[in-house]
Amino acid sequence: MHHSLSQRVRQLGFELPVPSQPIANYVNHVSSQNLLFISGQIPLHGDQPAYIGRLGETLSEEEGARAAELAALGLLAQLSDALNDDLSRLVRIVRLGVFIAASADFQRQGAVANGASNLLVDALGEKGRHARTAVGVASLPGGVAVEIDAIFELQP
Amino acid sequence: MHHSLSQRVRQLGFELPVPSQPIANYVNHVSSQNLLFISGQIPLHGDQPAYIGRLGETLSEEEGARAAELAALGLLAQLSDALNDDLSRLVRIVRLGVFIAASADFQRQGAVANGASNLLVDALGEKGRHARTAVGVASLPGGVAVEIDAIFELQP
Amino acid sequence: MHHSLSQRVRQLGFELPVPSQPIANYVNHVSSQNLLFISGQIPLHGDQPAYIGRLGETLSEEEGARAAELAALGLLAQLSDALNDDLSRLVRIVRLGVFIAASADFQRQGAVANGASNLLVDALGEKGRHARTAVGVASLPGGVAVEIDAIFELQP
Repeated sequence: MHHSLSQRVRQLGFELPVPSQPIANYVNHVSSQNLLFISGQIPLHGDQPAYIGRLGETLSEEEGARAAELAALGLLAQLSDALNDDLSRLVRIVRLGVFIAASADFQRQGAVANGASNLLVDALGEKGRHARTAVGVASLPGGVAVEIDAIFELQP
Repeated sequence: MHHSLSQRVRQLGFELPVPSQPIANYVNHVSSQNLLFISGQIPLHGDQPAYIGRLGETLSEEEGARAAELAALGLLAQLSDALNDDLSRLVRIVRLGVFIAASADFQRQGAVANGASNLLVDALGEKGRHARTAVGVASLPGGVAVEIDAIFELQP
Repeated sequence: MHHSLSQRVRQLGFELPVPSQPIANYVNHVSSQNLLFISGQIPLHGDQPAYIGRLGETLSEEEGARAAELAALGLLAQLSDALNDDLSRLVRIVRLGVFIAASADFQRQGAVANGASNLLVDALGEKGRHARTAVGVASLPGGVAVEIDAIFELQP
């Protein structure tokens, strides 16, 4: 059992990023009863948007999956922030919403979203399995390729 | 009262499809407390994506509504799977998220989404009424015209 | 403390609109346990869609923010309808989903969404802060620029 999320992520060869801070009248996570709602996270290198571009045009499916992986690391950073890095209160991931900047003829939204799903299951095991919706959108903040939001279930 | 969802769907002239199985690290439905979250479902004929195309371009509004109807059958198949086909635990549908592959000038997302809403109310009566968000997106998995996710409320 | 939402909105210089009525088999708000789910709201002037157009093409960022503000007023109208205009049962806004009709190269979804976030915090104070996801989509019902749905937490 890994009770520190930052350690677990490091074992996978990643570093948990500093949780991004919203610069407006919203927050990155809200708890309501047993559910934790996390705002849409984009791929970041440091504090800069990463993987700028569109699937089906300027980015490959593999690059899209890496973008989704980075966005999922952002979700884990917010989760860690909400739980003070203590995973013992996590029941499971409930749902991911995966938004992919894509051309009209791109059909592999699932393969891109797998970059996030695989990282989350690698990090959290069975607790990491989730319901998921993946769609191709016109454009995303900062021009990034992927944005992902999430609902987690926590113990009371 | 119809306690079997598959029978009820058959009375409407449809057949409840075999619930689709995800081929990656996600699942098609997750229960959290009293809420059941269902992953985005696409229209399928057998196990093949159906209604390939875009509203406002290659598909008519009526075809879009039929695509939404098929996606809603997928939601009911997942609901049936979660409830072992026993409707008595269903409190109601809470919410649908309806994503429609559409051109920039398509304005009838509501009419397309009605294909799903009408089927669900036909199948479930008052329990089938739901909050709903319908938007036009750039592209969907497999090139389909409609993808729909849902939240249901179940009895404990 | 303001217990009437309509009075509070008037103090901000707005008028709470008549809550829009769906014309099909869905409803504008559904309560499930402590959560209130509100259907996607679009900007309306009276009962007519307002702010027709796309960000990055025919509408400016400032116009987009005003469209988001109007859609947020629609959310408050639905909230008021659900609570009989009595704010004392409101715990907080949990989450906004902000869908913005945008060109492929539009990158300022956050600035547009701030039109909604700022109004909601102005109206509700700390209870108005929320998790948020903002994405650019291909097209929205009636050709409007912004559609926003929401989850609120209520007291039992």
